[in-house]
Amino acid sequence: MLEFLFRPSTVAIIGASRDPEKLGYAVLANLKEGGFGGALYPVNPKADEVLGFPAFPSVLDIPDPVDLAVIVIPYRFVPAVLEECGRKGVPAAVVISAGFREAGREGLEREGELVEIAHRYNIRLVGPNCLGVIDTDTPLNATFAAGMPPGGPIAFMSQSGALGTAVLDMAMAGRIGFSRFVSLGNKADVNEVDLLEAWEDDAGVRVILVYVEGLPDGRKFMQVARRVTRKKPVVAVKSGITRAGSRAVSSHTGSLAGSEAAYRAAFRQAGVTWAASMQHLFDYARAFAYQPLLDGDRIAIVTNAGGPGILATDALERAGLRLARLAPATIESLMADLPGAASAANPVDVLGDALSDRYEHALRLVLDDQGVDGCIVIVTPQAMTQIEETAHVVGRIAQASAKPILGCFMGEARIGAGVAILHKYDVPNYSFPERAAAAFAAMVAYREERDRPLHHPTRFAVDEGAVRAVLDKARSEGRVSIGDAEARAILEAYGFPVPASRLAATSEEAVAAAEEMGYPVVLKVASPEILHKTDVGGVKLNLRSPDDVRDAFDLIVYRANRYVPGARIWGCLVQKMVPGGREVLIGMSRDPQFGPLVAFGLGGIYVETLKDVVFRVAPFSREDGAEMIREIRSYPLLEGVRGEPPADHEAMVDALVRVSQLVTDFPEIVELDINPLMVFDEGRGAVALDMRLVLQ
Amino acid sequence: MLEFLFRPSTVAIIGASRDPEKLGYAVLANLKEGGFGGALYPVNPKADEVLGFPAFPSVLDIPDPVDLAVIVIPYRFVPAVLEECGRKGVPAAVVISAGFREAGREGLEREGELVEIAHRYNIRLVGPNCLGVIDTDTPLNATFAAGMPPGGPIAFMSQSGALGTAVLDMAMAGRIGFSRFVSLGNKADVNEVDLLEAWEDDAGVRVILVYVEGLPDGRKFMQVARRVTRKKPVVAVKSGITRAGSRAVSSHTGSLAGSEAAYRAAFRQAGVTWAASMQHLFDYARAFAYQPLLDGDRIAIVTNAGGPGILATDALERAGLRLARLAPATIESLMADLPGAASAANPVDVLGDALSDRYEHALRLVLDDQGVDGCIVIVTPQAMTQIEETAHVVGRIAQASAKPILGCFMGEARIGAGVAILHKYDVPNYSFPERAAAAFAAMVAYREERDRPLHHPTRFAVDEGAVRAVLDKARSEGRVSIGDAEARAILEAYGFPVPASRLAATSEEAVAAAEEMGYPVVLKVASPEILHKTDVGGVKLNLRSPDDVRDAFDLIVYRANRYVPGARIWGCLVQKMVPGGREVLIGMSRDPQFGPLVAFGLGGIYVETLKDVVFRVAPFSREDGAEMIREIRSYPLLEGVRGEPPADHEAMVDALVRVSQLVTDFPEIVELDINPLMVFDEGRGAVALDMRLVLQ
Repeated sequence: MLEFLFRPSTVAIIGASRDPEKLGYAVLANLKEGGFGGALYPVNPKADEVLGFPAFPSVLDIPDPVDLAVIVIPYRFVPAVLEECGRKGVPAAVVISAGFREAGREGLEREGELVEIAHRYNIRLVGPNCLGVIDTDTPLNATFAAGMPPGGPIAFMSQSGALGTAVLDMAMAGRIGFSRFVSLGNKADVNEVDLLEAWEDDAGVRVILVYVEGLPDGRKFMQVARRVTRKKPVVAVKSGITRAGSRAVSSHTGSLAGSEAAYRAAFRQAGVTWAASMQHLFDYARAFAYQPLLDGDRIAIVTNAGGPGILATDALERAGLRLARLAPATIESLMADLPGAASAANPVDVLGDALSDRYEHALRLVLDDQGVDGCIVIVTPQAMTQIEETAHVVGRIAQASAKPILGCFMGEARIGAGVAILHKYDVPNYSFPERAAAAFAAMVAYREERDRPLHHPTRFAVDEGAVRAVLDKARSEGRVSIGDAEARAILEAYGFPVPASRLAATSEEAVAAAEEMGYPVVLKVASPEILHKTDVGGVKLNLRSPDDVRDAFDLIVYRANRYVPGARIWGCLVQKMVPGGREVLIGMSRDPQFGPLVAFGLGGIYVETLKDVVFRVAPFSREDGAEMIREIRSYPLLEGVRGEPPADHEAMVDALVRVSQLVTDFPEIVELDINPLMVFDEGRGAVALDMRLVLQ
Repeated sequence: MLEFLFRPSTVAIIGASRDPEKLGYAVLANLKEGGFGGALYPVNPKADEVLGFPAFPSVLDIPDPVDLAVIVIPYRFVPAVLEECGRKGVPAAVVISAGFREAGREGLEREGELVEIAHRYNIRLVGPNCLGVIDTDTPLNATFAAGMPPGGPIAFMSQSGALGTAVLDMAMAGRIGFSRFVSLGNKADVNEVDLLEAWEDDAGVRVILVYVEGLPDGRKFMQVARRVTRKKPVVAVKSGITRAGSRAVSSHTGSLAGSEAAYRAAFRQAGVTWAASMQHLFDYARAFAYQPLLDGDRIAIVTNAGGPGILATDALERAGLRLARLAPATIESLMADLPGAASAANPVDVLGDALSDRYEHALRLVLDDQGVDGCIVIVTPQAMTQIEETAHVVGRIAQASAKPILGCFMGEARIGAGVAILHKYDVPNYSFPERAAAAFAAMVAYREERDRPLHHPTRFAVDEGAVRAVLDKARSEGRVSIGDAEARAILEAYGFPVPASRLAATSEEAVAAAEEMGYPVVLKVASPEILHKTDVGGVKLNLRSPDDVRDAFDLIVYRANRYVPGARIWGCLVQKMVPGGREVLIGMSRDPQFGPLVAFGLGGIYVETLKDVVFRVAPFSREDGAEMIREIRSYPLLEGVRGEPPADHEAMVDALVRVSQLVTDFPEIVELDINPLMVFDEGRGAVALDMRLVLQ
């Protein structure tokens, strides 16, 4: 699909320059020095040749077909040149030039022109305002970066070109290798989703890295990522997740930055590994790229130093992994050959005077243990330590092992030689044990997510027509808020249990309703203008007699008129008082990038004060719903503390999935709150007590 | 005090060897090559000279006084040799030899011998089982490490010698410089406290780093650290803080590993900066060592790349710092000289084509802004970036600035030259913005802690005799548990308000008591064997009549006999029912290293389920107590939600400080629980409702 972008036979460099200070020079030089095997055609009307290649006045003058055009000319000429590319039949273009969307309204219009031309001629376009594209297998270096990075099984896409230069500079020092590298720039055409699809079955890509500021079509990204992450890991850094950070994003590229909650939920649901920082991104990437996945979470440590062994142990536990318990036979074999002072239990301490043979012996035994899923090898540069020999030992064992090994050769001056050897054997090294532990944790989490059966949202039979009717009525009256009385009808249509209730226009109607449904009852003000009923004294609980009901009715109506002058008061909703239970909240707001974001938490202070809420992007499955419930910190309260029975788990899952379906079916619902959903003990269900909706 | 350790004029190397494979060779070679200016005396009965120095058969044969003896001989000869050192009058010794406490019971005894000899002769002894001591100012390299690290204002002490080798290897690569380095080994004599004291007024030390596994005398450490951290930062990594990690420690050196909670509380109270990993330790160290402290928490960012600017902004907010708001005048001046597309608001984006002059201009303006306390300078290696010139600009400005600047030159191959230049100007560089932000956060936290007035625990007038009487009675009866009835007397003696209550041996006595104090009352079983009264149905609340009281009494006694056969039942405690309030818990357990660790949290599920508890080591001040209360996550509940008035803050502080005093005065109290302390609305006090104590 994007094959002309990565594997062109001929490349035109439009704006190729003979002046080494110009980007157009750097791009051509990179293509040449990067070893590109096809034909290079500089386009420059003022030159006969550039860097030894014959130059052409225009792309249309090139005698052969052109697979890829790299455009490095002032922005005002770009649309005309792209038009020429179209006429020439060029299938792919990289627009490096800046001066588009990032440069204000005029630039945005100019970018619109580019998109229009690209679509008209079926050109796949990277950029504008980008660093370019690299494929180290082709090899193709169509960037103005300083040179070609080493190859490797990692593909990297970056919304920031500058960050790309830093990453390539890291790579040039031998820290990491890339098979593909794309600076996406303004993403006028090719975006993250296109690249995920391009790399999905690309054998040269074992892991995909993403640096993203905003995802205009978050839902499409989720859908494709969910598929791709079943095949290979996708690790992403999202910047602009804090409030301050999002403000910085919008001054930067005008990207719409979704909230951290939405991104975290969406990435997780799509199986995308969340990297909290660039360092995590590359730490995870190296483990994924160069080592096999683990079968479980039981990690062994082999070390020549007690202290770092303890640090690693701490780090494993903090990362949620388990310190492997070695089998008695393993311990026995270790003890037979290690000196008496060595520790044969995990962490295995081969002692400070260990030569490479002792490491070899211990590492082989530990990896053979059925109870070990992966191993961290710590080497400190002590007086007798054979740093290079030990690196060879670790490397050779790792290459023959189906279990992953991560190095933690600590230090730099002397240890550097060992690290370089490890890299030759594709064993990633981490300067501190905490980072190796975090990388293993990312692998375990990815593996679990990948192997989880795919769950699909189930659909309940519901009455969509009834919901449509309520929404249409509100819209025809120009109302965007849907209060209790109408929201109730909507929830009922979607199969929510709601308490028996009736709208009463007068106090006598209220008494009649109460008599019919039986005491005790609750009265709530019914007004399209009053959403927060408690705040205006609009709710009275536990009314046990006709007098109670009459008093409450009059008081509520009096207060509503007083506190919200001009509000239309339809009367009161009379509702059967339900017995006590545990109060939970289900909410939904619409994220601009990912759509409906459903929230779950315990009601009241748990949500408001302790911020104990989890999120998922709808639609989601029952399994996702069950996971949400288990993820809140206060989940033990739902399980029951101090001998209480558990709350009805299935009823909560049911409610979550019904909300998911409702907000998916009706995109015009932009906010929804069921607060509280009263959940009874196990097997006794749940009832939605209070609810409100906001329409677009 | 330890001056002979760091600045000796003469050093004897006992066990100096001519065999380059031996540690005794490495130590002498290091002393020689490290440029030691005094006299070196190899001691080796089998050689006439070692490495060109005349050798002596014993330390006693050395004609001159010996300031420092470095002992590198097999363990069995160490005590005799140390004895000789004593007779020779050697004031300081470093015992590198292993085979002591870490090698089991026999080794422990041998170590005891060393300590005895050292004390007898007044020798300050480092080790045994260590890497040695370095002072780069003297210069003195009395270790068997591979060479001498570069100098610098950092002092490092490590309980792990192997970790020390890794750290020195990092230093050798130019990453960090040390003025002092001590591998503490088994800490038979010299320990962390001695070094803190030695470095307290040492002008060559700007920051003290500690790697610690266990602190046998945690209280002494706190006391000294509290003083030292007023003068210079102390940054510590504590390993073995997780359960798995502590097990690894005990198999390692037999150090007693305190709980993470105790260490965190103690370090914080002592002003010690907590580093969560070795990487944090060195990241913080470089900022403290080389840059001035900040006056506030408002950070500016100057960058040539939008993406990394956003990452830095995110990281600042996450670290709890503020993105500085630039003054209008600053923004105006920036705009006047930056290109139109640049961003003059913080983060200041000087754009990808910025040369060093643009950085210089922007950085000067930003640092001159009164609203900026510190600055992160981000440089990505773009096509036109003048990496080295920019590093010089940043370095020169930093040297003239009273505000700290941290570098974030991102990359490695090309960027490395810039980083090396920054280091020459003492500007620390961090490869990723998150790490620079974390370093600034550590500086801000240290500064705030250092400048906080020192608060001293106030003493309440209390009745210690009454407490002594209760404790003595329990001890004389061989009881270690003190239940409600007796604990109440203890708390009353320490000025706690407790509800009116009386022990009733019969149901009629209970009724009489209730009549006297007025209904409603509470009955609780009184038995020295029953501490968890609720579990056996031993508590009845809200009793409103004589019949209620009689029924409750009989039921409680019946159940107590049935569920705890053989328990002595003294009857029931009749207690005035107190009105509702907010329930908090105050607890205490005794940490083996730091002593009484007082816990505070909201009662019930907040502590049990949400683990929302904070800790302080007693004794502590009212200010500490107030801080504890504010630190729990559920603090808003104590402030009052939904229009509730706040809970009585002073009453909670009072209770905390009284507990602090009680557990300090009576070390035999090893556990204490007041659960709940019922706290009423502001100004209405608090009452201890239920309590228990455990004695040693």
